[in-house]
This record gives sequence, C-alpha cells and structure tokens, in this order.
Amino acid sequence: MRTVEWQKGSVRLIDQRWLPWEFQVLELRDPTAVAEAIRDMVVRGAPAIGATAAYGMALAGLRSDADSVEEMCADLEAAADRLHQARPTAVNLAWAVKRQLAVATDPQWTSADQIRAALIRHAHQIADSDVEINRQMGAHGATLVQDGDTILHHCNTGALAAVDYGTALGVVRAAHESGKRVHVLVDETRPRLQGARLTAWELKNLGISFDVIADNAAGHFMRTGQVDLVLVGADRIAANGDVANKIGTYKLAVVARENGVPFYSVAPTSTIDLELPSGDDIPIEERPPEEVLTVAGQSVAPEGASARNPAFDVTPHRYLTAIVTENGIAYPPLARNLRRSVEGEAI
Amino acid sequence: MRTVEWQKGSVRLIDQRWLPWEFQVLELRDPTAVAEAIRDMVVRGAPAIGATAAYGMALAGLRSDADSVEEMCADLEAAADRLHQARPTAVNLAWAVKRQLAVATDPQWTSADQIRAALIRHAHQIADSDVEINRQMGAHGATLVQDGDTILHHCNTGALAAVDYGTALGVVRAAHESGKRVHVLVDETRPRLQGARLTAWELKNLGISFDVIADNAAGHFMRTGQVDLVLVGADRIAANGDVANKIGTYKLAVVARENGVPFYSVAPTSTIDLELPSGDDIPIEERPPEEVLTVAGQSVAPEGASARNPAFDVTPHRYLTAIVTENGIAYPPLARNLRRSVEGEAI
Repeated sequence: MRTVEWQKGSVRLIDQRWLPWEFQVLELRDPTAVAEAIRDMVVRGAPAIGATAAYGMALAGLRSDADSVEEMCADLEAAADRLHQARPTAVNLAWAVKRQLAVATDPQWTSADQIRAALIRHAHQIADSDVEINRQMGAHGATLVQDGDTILHHCNTGALAAVDYGTALGVVRAAHESGKRVHVLVDETRPRLQGARLTAWELKNLGISFDVIADNAAGHFMRTGQVDLVLVGADRIAANGDVANKIGTYKLAVVARENGVPFYSVAPTSTIDLELPSGDDIPIEERPPEEVLTVAGQSVAPEGASARNPAFDVTPHRYLTAIVTENGIAYPPLARNLRRSVEGEAI
Repeated sequence: MRTVEWQKGSVRLIDQRWLPWEFQVLELRDPTAVAEAIRDMVVRGAPAIGATAAYGMALAGLRSDADSVEEMCADLEAAADRLHQARPTAVNLAWAVKRQLAVATDPQWTSADQIRAALIRHAHQIADSDVEINRQMGAHGATLVQDGDTILHHCNTGALAAVDYGTALGVVRAAHESGKRVHVLVDETRPRLQGARLTAWELKNLGISFDVIADNAAGHFMRTGQVDLVLVGADRIAANGDVANKIGTYKLAVVARENGVPFYSVAPTSTIDLELPSGDDIPIEERPPEEVLTVAGQSVAPEGASARNPAFDVTPHRYLTAIVTENGIAYPPLARNLRRSVEGEAI
C-alpha cells in the first residue's frame, strides 16, 4: 500500500511509529484525527505530510454538515487551521492545505456537495502527482550517482516519507534500478531513529546494500574518504536556497564541505517557499524532551533529566552542492535557479 | 566510592553499563577478568582504563604462583599482553601497563614478593595521582570558562571516566565550584549513550544545570549562538596535536570552528603519545554492530540489518583551540607546546 491512501471516506496511514517492529495501518475518519496523526508522527516526511493534509481537508468536507457553500468554506477554514498547526516546519503541509482551500473557494461551485467531491478529486491529484514527481526527481538525481558509489543518507526520505517512491532515497532507488551498484551509510537519525527504523527497512525490502551508523560516525567516514556523496531531503527551502531539514543535516553539510564531499538536497518544488527570503525565517519545531530521554520506551537518562529537542535545523545555502527537484538539478546561484525551478523553466 | 578501587586483593569497579538505571559494583580477582571488563566497557574513559590496567597488573602479580623474579616477569608480560589487547585506541592503557612492567623489571628486586608489593604500591600511586592531575586540569581549564557560559560536552569525561573528578567534566566542575554559573548541553553520545546515561547522572548529582541533546542537535545550537565553548576529553593525542576521541568529536570540532566556538580537549599528559607523529597512525577500534542496532537491549533496526561501529574518530589539530593538561593550557603550535607540556616545562 501507499504511505497515505484514501478508502471509502477515510484516510489510511502506515503507522510509522511502530516500524520496523510492526506493520500497522491506522484508519482516520475526521480531520482532527488527521492533525493528531501528523503531530504524533504516525506519518512524517514533508511530501507525505502534504498529501495527508490534502486528504484531511477532503475528510473535513465529508464530515462537515454544511448545506451551503459559505458554511462549507467556514468549516474548511477551521479544519485548515487545525491541520496547519500540527507541525510548523515542513511547508508542504501549508502548501497542500492552501491548495485545497483554493479548490474549495473556486467561484464555480454552487453547492457544498460539489466542494466535497472537488476536495477528494484534488487530494487524489496531489497524491498521484507526488509519486510522479518523485520518479522525476529520482531520474534527475540518479545522474549524480556513479556505479560503485557509497551514499551517506540522513533521516528517512523513502516511500514512507512521500506517498510512494521517495525523494533522496528515490534517487538511491533510481540509481539502483538503473543497474548502478550503490552502498548506503544510513545515519540512524536520533532522536526518532527514522534512519535505523525506516530507511534500513526500506533499503532491506528493496535489496539495496547498506550499513546503519550512529549519526556521530558520519564525519569519520567522510574524513577517511569512504563517502562519495550525501543525499538528504528537505522540509522547507527558502528562496535563497537555505534548507530546513531533519536535525543533524547542518552538521553533515558542514563536514561534507570540509571534506569535499558533494551534498545534495532532493525535494519537490512544493517544498520551496519563495516567500521566505532566508532560512532564518523558518520556524523550528521543538518537540517533547521525552523523544531524547527515551528510546523505544526505555529511559536512557537519569530520572528528572531535562532535554532540548529541536526537530530541524537550517543548512545555509553555501553548503549545498545542488538541489534536485522534479524540474531538474538546481546549482548555485540557488536564489536564481530555485525560482526558475519552481516556475518550471529550464534551469 | 572511586570509579576504580583496590580492596583486599581485588579490584572493584563501578559497572558503568547499568548506570543510571542501577548502581552495581563488580569485584574482579584476576587480570583476565580485568581485561574483559575493559573490553566490555564495565569501565571506560582513558584515565579510568589506565588506572584499572595498573591494578590489573597488580592482580597479575598476586595471582601468579611465580617463585622467582624471572618467572614473575614472564607472567606479568603475558598479563600485559592480554590487558593491552582489550582496547586499542586509548593510550593510557598501554601507558599504565608499560609503567607497571618497568616497575616489575627494576633490577633492585630480588624476590617475586617484592615485585608483588611494588605493583600494588605503584597502582595506588597511579590512581591517586590521577585524581590530583584531574584537579589540576580542572583549575587550569576553569580559567577558560566565563560566568554564565553554556558548555557543549561530548561523551563522559567525569569522575566515572577517571579515578575521580574527571577531565573535561572536571573543568566544568571546577568552574562550578569556583562560583561560575554554567549550563551544560550534554551530547547523548550514541551508540553507547555515555552522555545521556553517565554525564547527565554525574551533573545531576553535582547540582550543575544541564540539558541532554541528541548528538544531531549540537550543530543547531552552535549555529544559533547558544554555545560558548566545547569541552571534550581525549583517548590518545598524537605528537602533532591530532586527537583521537569518542566517535562524533570530529564533527563537533569542524562545526565549532565553522561557528567560531572555542574547542578544547582536556586530557592528562599520559594521553599524549609523542611516539606517534599524527592521528593517522592511531588505531581506531571498531566495536560490535549490536551497539548501533540496539539501545538498552531493544532492537532499533530491522532484523538482519548490518551496521558499522567505529568507536573513535580523529580530530586534526587545526580544529583545536587548545589542549588542557595538568601542566597548563597548550595553544598552537601544538607540536611544540604539547612536547613541553609532557616534559613539564612552562608552555
């Protein structure tokens, strides 16, 4: 199944909190439950969150008892607010919700039922197009990978982070499918271990060679010449090319540049926020300290210990070799080339 | 109690594998058990390993049934080999074993019993002097800490990593004891979580303010101006000032320099290996993959996943602001000033 699916008026999500131990599917029937699932990271990964939020808006339409277009739009605005607040950093959530609101307020609709149907149709479009976009990114990005390369990868950016296929891991997959032999060093990605739990699970299922490493070990492997390139995703990219992504990305990028290792972010244009001049304007979510103080329910620090838990960091654009989108590979100057990429022009 | 103690012909160690969950003390009666305890990380931290190995040699003397000086020396050589192989990176182990062998082969001894007694005396000297050395490093290092500073700290370098007091954490402690208000960001230090488990436990017991962070978050805090200095220990320092230390140190050092954050290694001169020209010559221990694939006994990756687990990395000397030893603060040029430090000259 896809990471996010629509079935008979409900949204089905692979519950990513329990992988790789258990494969559970959660079925949600109203937008509040969808917002909670996003906040609790049942589903994560910027593109997957975007598609889930789009379906959440479709559910908001279905569950609303509005009779008129006006009442429907008011209900949708309220649902949009709830979804929007679930997680602040990834822009795809806001992007999808905004697109659904635009669909709902199209002046052509004369009844609430027309809006209900349009929201479901449009959610399907977003989801289907995400898969197609990922395959395009994979094809572009695979040209950056040579036969025999070792790729360092952070967090999870695979099929589970999108509707299907994946962003940065989609590039790995495309390279593998084209017959290149690749090996992946999988940053385990504390605190939530998306690398060890999810990326390793996906790579194993795909039959791609990998080793899990502690995040701390990435520098050692780069300094000793054992890494050919680094691939990460993105949760929000500012107009100047600064990338907000999973905590730890910034450290990786600095150490990659120090060692002359190419560093690429792979993300759909829906992740690019041209309204933000720089990464300094991206809100950084701080998640509960328990994510740091426990691992799989087991406490790892003394009782009463406190923790700080920023979920993302910002990598300034100067550390990026290029950004891969569905429209091609944007090299510096990123401010110019990202804008062209968003506008679908040749970069 | 001290991390390492001698009691009636046995070595007592705080079993650091179970902290902070349980405080257990292991009592060892022969040098093979001591070597195993070092390998299994019952005791860890370069200075603590050094003192433990010294006592291990004393046990080897006691357990040997040698009657003559020659037989005794042969037995001690065998024990030295076993201890030596327990962990390859920290030089303090080799240093302590070598010192004990030198004690044993002193031409003044005419009986095996004299050697037995000398080894015990000398192990006590090494242990007592470690505590004194740590206090001296604390006093020197505390001059680098300002009132109100936030200190980023990696791994555990506290009383548990030494016989008592600590190296880098000894500096934090000395600053705190002198009335400076400090706050510590504690890198949890995967894979074995020495930061979350041991450093947090020590800081809590000392009443020093701290927050545990995922190792991934250190870059974010440095880039956003929330770190005043970084303090780490060392497992081996080459003649040119390259520092082998817990995996992750290198990444921290690179990111610290990139952000203009001072980066100090705190270590006794017994950690400095003047016979090694550079860090490239330091053997890097690779530990079992299970340390990465599990946390506190809980698997965190899919079944059958493989992992790489280098326990240390090398930080080239150019990233270090200074190295603090019991003889003072050695600034660059480190090749010259470390040698002076070892020789006890004014730096």
